[in-house]
Amino acid sequence: MTAFKNGPGASADQKTRFFLVIMRLNLKFLLISLCVTVALITFALWANCGVGRGLVPKWPIQHNGEGGGNPFDQTEEIDCIINQEYAVGCRKEGEEVYLPFSFLQKYFDVYGSLNVVDGSRRFDWTHSYGKVNYPKGAYDPRGIFMYFENYNVEMRDRVKCISALEGVPISTQWESQGYCYATQIAQFGLSHYSKNLTEPEPRRKVVEDADRELAPWIVPKNSTMNRTIDQRIPRGTNMVLSFSTGKSFDTAVVLPMDHVLDLVLSVDVLLKPNSTLCVTLQNRETQRLYHVYYILADLLIGVQDENIYYGIGLNSTGVWKRLTRDLFVDLQKGLPQYVNTDKRRKMRRTELKVVEVSLLGNGSIDNLTLSTSEHIAHFYDAAEWLIRHQDPSSGGWPIPVRRKLGSGFAELARGWYSAMAQGHAISLLARAYYHSRGDQRYLRAALDGLKLFRIPSYQGGVLATFLGKYAWYEEYPTTPHSFVLNGFIYSLLGLYDLNSTAPANQSNEAAMLFEQGMMSLKKMLLLYDTGSGTSYDLRHFTLGIAPNLARWDYHATHVNQLLLLATIDPDPLIVQTAERWKNYMVGKRAQHN
Amino acid sequence: MTAFKNGPGASADQKTRFFLVIMRLNLKFLLISLCVTVALITFALWANCGVGRGLVPKWPIQHNGEGGGNPFDQTEEIDCIINQEYAVGCRKEGEEVYLPFSFLQKYFDVYGSLNVVDGSRRFDWTHSYGKVNYPKGAYDPRGIFMYFENYNVEMRDRVKCISALEGVPISTQWESQGYCYATQIAQFGLSHYSKNLTEPEPRRKVVEDADRELAPWIVPKNSTMNRTIDQRIPRGTNMVLSFSTGKSFDTAVVLPMDHVLDLVLSVDVLLKPNSTLCVTLQNRETQRLYHVYYILADLLIGVQDENIYYGIGLNSTGVWKRLTRDLFVDLQKGLPQYVNTDKRRKMRRTELKVVEVSLLGNGSIDNLTLSTSEHIAHFYDAAEWLIRHQDPSSGGWPIPVRRKLGSGFAELARGWYSAMAQGHAISLLARAYYHSRGDQRYLRAALDGLKLFRIPSYQGGVLATFLGKYAWYEEYPTTPHSFVLNGFIYSLLGLYDLNSTAPANQSNEAAMLFEQGMMSLKKMLLLYDTGSGTSYDLRHFTLGIAPNLARWDYHATHVNQLLLLATIDPDPLIVQTAERWKNYMVGKRAQHN
Repeated sequence: MTAFKNGPGASADQKTRFFLVIMRLNLKFLLISLCVTVALITFALWANCGVGRGLVPKWPIQHNGEGGGNPFDQTEEIDCIINQEYAVGCRKEGEEVYLPFSFLQKYFDVYGSLNVVDGSRRFDWTHSYGKVNYPKGAYDPRGIFMYFENYNVEMRDRVKCISALEGVPISTQWESQGYCYATQIAQFGLSHYSKNLTEPEPRRKVVEDADRELAPWIVPKNSTMNRTIDQRIPRGTNMVLSFSTGKSFDTAVVLPMDHVLDLVLSVDVLLKPNSTLCVTLQNRETQRLYHVYYILADLLIGVQDENIYYGIGLNSTGVWKRLTRDLFVDLQKGLPQYVNTDKRRKMRRTELKVVEVSLLGNGSIDNLTLSTSEHIAHFYDAAEWLIRHQDPSSGGWPIPVRRKLGSGFAELARGWYSAMAQGHAISLLARAYYHSRGDQRYLRAALDGLKLFRIPSYQGGVLATFLGKYAWYEEYPTTPHSFVLNGFIYSLLGLYDLNSTAPANQSNEAAMLFEQGMMSLKKMLLLYDTGSGTSYDLRHFTLGIAPNLARWDYHATHVNQLLLLATIDPDPLIVQTAERWKNYMVGKRAQHN
Repeated sequence: MTAFKNGPGASADQKTRFFLVIMRLNLKFLLISLCVTVALITFALWANCGVGRGLVPKWPIQHNGEGGGNPFDQTEEIDCIINQEYAVGCRKEGEEVYLPFSFLQKYFDVYGSLNVVDGSRRFDWTHSYGKVNYPKGAYDPRGIFMYFENYNVEMRDRVKCISALEGVPISTQWESQGYCYATQIAQFGLSHYSKNLTEPEPRRKVVEDADRELAPWIVPKNSTMNRTIDQRIPRGTNMVLSFSTGKSFDTAVVLPMDHVLDLVLSVDVLLKPNSTLCVTLQNRETQRLYHVYYILADLLIGVQDENIYYGIGLNSTGVWKRLTRDLFVDLQKGLPQYVNTDKRRKMRRTELKVVEVSLLGNGSIDNLTLSTSEHIAHFYDAAEWLIRHQDPSSGGWPIPVRRKLGSGFAELARGWYSAMAQGHAISLLARAYYHSRGDQRYLRAALDGLKLFRIPSYQGGVLATFLGKYAWYEEYPTTPHSFVLNGFIYSLLGLYDLNSTAPANQSNEAAMLFEQGMMSLKKMLLLYDTGSGTSYDLRHFTLGIAPNLARWDYHATHVNQLLLLATIDPDPLIVQTAERWKNYMVGKRAQHN
């Protein structure tokens, strides 16, 4: 930069020569050049300063030439030297010094935003982003699970899609190709169970049951469709709708529709080889059409432009299968934008409508229904998954991906068990046992799910002990122990749920495990208290490293869990700790001495 | 700075106006001015850039209200709503919001001050006020104790005075009438031992030894003074100075002096009943005179206007007694302002001079000396106190005041023992054993001081165990355990010191206790780590309450102790933890997940 020739580094000799040269030139031109130089240097160095520090970009200085009348005439610029390490541009008025939020935000990890409320601008300072959920009453093991009615598991980014084979979410949390994660599946089921209790009764429209509701299907020439008897159909009357078409889509049997909001499709299907059920959706704003296919394949999800394919399993060939599909979710998960960029394109549920259902190949359908929701169906999909996938000898739901919790911990090998998964599964199965009015399969699975709580983590179970004294159920049965708090409390809820739901003569084991765990919780709870937040686990103790501080949403989970436990255990320790931890979320710390 | 008027924010209109005005002026002059302006801006901004790295201060922007161009015209007032709870008046400039330090200070407990450095105003933000002391080398049990050469125990507000009876500080920390606190006495001794190693050799002036140094005493009529033989005098030749006067002060034998800086008086005295040694001090600025009397009484300290009385004990009647008195301290502790308002009147050591020593009644003195310091004498005063006051059966130094550590803990009854007091005493006695070239009394006392480390706190000892697993030496042997960290580490240093100093065949017990304690420390150390500071103790764990966060000076003590331990134990856990904890002092927290 030539401007630097006039900088502090220029020698006296240089300056003289420079001056003599310019004297020979047009003075007017020079004056302008110098003015520009002044401006340029000022700007260049100013910009440079901001970059060099990597902190607050400085405000551009405004001049409007109109003197006087400014209430902030006393505002001065002042440097704040932070811990003798670096400088931050601040403001001073009288004895008060003002520090820029952009600095504070990074330094203290706080949040803030400029908002307009009632016509006035204000700045909202937020210590944390966690949300406290006060329980509405005493916790009921047959009722809402925590505050899971607010959960929307299937819409999480780390859910690849809902398997059409089993009706449960597929996780990509720790392996991108997707896998079944019992914890997530149970959360999916528990959230639908809870929503079923909190949301209004869904609107349901039976579109076609081959008996009372007959829809105006369009049957192309050379294709056939008729309503016949099939004794194998497991629900409703045994009248079903059978179809037979060619191979190309112009031969498909088609039902045009104009259905908004009721985007949950339920249907019994029996497909012969190479047959397909297809639902066409339209974005009412863009008019764009999307096709969701349910096909006889072991494919999880496949996408080609606006065509999204879900496999219902080769095994389903020629047998009746019940599908309950949230079409909004099925579309969303398949939107090309989502698949290609790993980022969901935001589309609102209300933008969509169902414009067509079509059938291709040979097969039958029955009880074709569109609803606003089918929470209980999803809940039982999850319950059935748990029944099918429980390891018969351990009673556990193995997690099929490797997991390294952090540096210093040995990696958990594929097939590890989690006390949180066990607890969630038991919470769900206890509710399924209750909701199904005593289906013994659910009770049996829940009781079997307790076995791992007695087996030390080094022997493949989920039991850790704190200094050989306090039993702890490990979300991650690591070596050394990790003592993750939130997973432990979730496992306690599972034990509580089963103890409260199982017949008296079968609840002993759950009761004992729960009591033992609550004792440990009360003894160890304060080890997570940092005086301004909580730690997520006790790795600092077991590994001798920095504490793994809980980010605010985990901290809020700790608070919410304690608030819930306080409704079933009167020990003041629990509610007092919950209240203190809640205060940490608004910056109120423990006292120092 | 007016130069900013040409800055990048100047409007086109302004520039034109500016240009027209200057056209009317002498162009040559302007050229020079502009060149200077370029150079000035360049330099100013360049200097400013350096702040981020080298702490070159920024120049403050001045507003003199002359003709517009206020760069802060854009500063607006805006309310910050803090956690939806209350509002704080802030400033806004563009997208940046500035928050007042007066709010931040309270909210985050940080520190700040406006200062002028190299002529520029700046605001110094300080995360903590703790001070890290990096060890200068490996810890030497025969050398400086920690960084206690910086301690000035006697000048602490909670030290009532230095007893003239025993030469040790009297604490008012937990009982205002004053008591002997072994921990403080040991700190007093250890600080003097350490100062003796770090400070230059003191200047000593023998004023009168009745043999080689004979002072010009003024002996009033009817009073007598002569130099005689006394076989009982324990040091020097057996020549002593004897005096006999009336009862009123005008009969006193007086030695006028003009002595500055050397304010530590050493003297052997033998006083008969109703006799007194008096030292007169003068404040050289105010010319005010003060009289410090050492009298035969069991009085600790008495004050009447400018007369301050220290009792050397009725028991000292007619026997030789050695006094080593810091006259500055003796005066300071007795200043009426101090006694009446509990606030020390600040007086500087350099303001004082000794103007007179006088003797009243009957008795003898010898070896009257004034020195800049007598650290080793103070050190041995403390060592001898420990010998005299050790409980012969427990080997402990009982603490004669009740102590309630906090709500939830049972009160410690008078006579409780502290692992910190034991450890400090052992550190001091081990040094006394070394310094005295093997005085067995000191070794014996130090070894006896170990006994309490094996006795559980509930049986009157100082031993706690963490969940029955890790041995911990309690600074406060509370019920339930408190596990105070800094006191524990001090006790470990005592064990280490004795193990290193005692003859091989007598060091076993200290070695075993040290090893056991270090093991516990390494296992439990991280329980004190809050991710942004440390807790002082584990009361949150044992009482189930909020953690008792360590204030910054205690936190700094933790850091300093670990840095010291790291020089004798290579386990990376120690040095890594010390470094992380040090970073907490400049706001660098542990990561959250």
